[in-house]
Amino acid sequence: MRFDVITLFPEMFEAVLGTSIIGRARKNGAVDLNFHNLRDYSQDKHKRVDDYPYGGGLGMVMQCQPIFSAVEEISKMLKGSPHILLMSPKGRTFSQNKAKELLQHDNIIIICGHYEGIDERVVQGLVDEEISIGDFILTGGEIAAMAVIDATARLLPGVLKEEDSYNIETFSNGLLEYPQYTRPVEYKEMKVPDVLLSGHHENIEKWRKYHSIKDTYIKRPDMLNVSALTKEEKKMLDQIIEEEK
Amino acid sequence: MRFDVITLFPEMFEAVLGTSIIGRARKNGAVDLNFHNLRDYSQDKHKRVDDYPYGGGLGMVMQCQPIFSAVEEISKMLKGSPHILLMSPKGRTFSQNKAKELLQHDNIIIICGHYEGIDERVVQGLVDEEISIGDFILTGGEIAAMAVIDATARLLPGVLKEEDSYNIETFSNGLLEYPQYTRPVEYKEMKVPDVLLSGHHENIEKWRKYHSIKDTYIKRPDMLNVSALTKEEKKMLDQIIEEEK
Repeated sequence: MRFDVITLFPEMFEAVLGTSIIGRARKNGAVDLNFHNLRDYSQDKHKRVDDYPYGGGLGMVMQCQPIFSAVEEISKMLKGSPHILLMSPKGRTFSQNKAKELLQHDNIIIICGHYEGIDERVVQGLVDEEISIGDFILTGGEIAAMAVIDATARLLPGVLKEEDSYNIETFSNGLLEYPQYTRPVEYKEMKVPDVLLSGHHENIEKWRKYHSIKDTYIKRPDMLNVSALTKEEKKMLDQIIEEEK
Repeated sequence: MRFDVITLFPEMFEAVLGTSIIGRARKNGAVDLNFHNLRDYSQDKHKRVDDYPYGGGLGMVMQCQPIFSAVEEISKMLKGSPHILLMSPKGRTFSQNKAKELLQHDNIIIICGHYEGIDERVVQGLVDEEISIGDFILTGGEIAAMAVIDATARLLPGVLKEEDSYNIETFSNGLLEYPQYTRPVEYKEMKVPDVLLSGHHENIEKWRKYHSIKDTYIKRPDMLNVSALTKEEKKMLDQIIEEEK
């Protein structure tokens, strides 16, 4: 899978997506990331990429020409036709399911908007999908694009090693991960729960399931899909609701 | 306002938060950002920061000692007591309102979890608030922390210049921003709407309000707070619903 990012700040991306799991995946060839400076595609002699808004108002608006030209030039390098995303506060909210959906595309071009505004003809004539990572305003689309690439590329075959992968199910089964503990057994008078030290696998599984349901109920009740719970899990939930009263 | 980030990848942050609006705000002194390598606080002779989970299972768990020590050392440098955030998929979802809420703190420490897991005693004994930027899995808390810092620091006095700031109202008044256009008037047979070239301010305002409501209705109906609309805006919405049937 190949991502091409069109941005005013290509240097940001190498620093973030050049290390750790994604950096390793790029070296392996599991994912191919390319970052393009929008300014290189401007036909203006001063390499401008923005101009004043028609109709007046504050802020500058990103122009059509550099963005259309960048997409055209990048598309020539690709084998298939790309799926074109615009990072924008107007987009559909990104999620783990959207990340899975994006895996069907071999080539994704991501345009990083800057939130002073982008010429609407880019949205109408070029973009397949506007995506937002949440209901907050960022300076530009760069951090949002990194989140989309990281969350999506992690799901490609060969990116995660077995020891990376256990947490992949959060947001898939509708339950938050259970609490984790590691050495030492006691730290600042806080102890690891006895059951986790017992070696009794069935009890450990039960404890983890219980706390997974409890954490979800307390921290993210909106995620809790009661109809997907087994009979035993429902019983645990009833007990938790009773205790939390 | 001062942010201190505890992370395994401090070098990521300078690249992203050293340029553009936040970079300028740091030079101005409007915001003070500090990035700390968690490994520097490990008392292990090999500078380890993680270990196997009690109770078994895949993945490594981040240990208490380096994180507690980092927070203790950083706190000594601060004038007041810090508000401590953990970036975590279990957290409350970040939003523009949460960004505004964070402004009340002079000192924020952000711990970047890695999503293999973090010892629960950090959550119970140290953290004031767990924050997630959305329902997707990232490799680490770093990209999420950047989003929180960017969205929050933008709201500090003196960070945005007048020309940066108009879009700040998206997610505040419940409507998406209206479509923007800039030169040229025609590009690839797509024209700027006549009204925006008319110089008739009242009509321009009306067109923008109409399209702001229309974009919200089509792209983010969940955001549309009908009871907050004026009588004229409600009439526009009725017309849009009729047209979109």
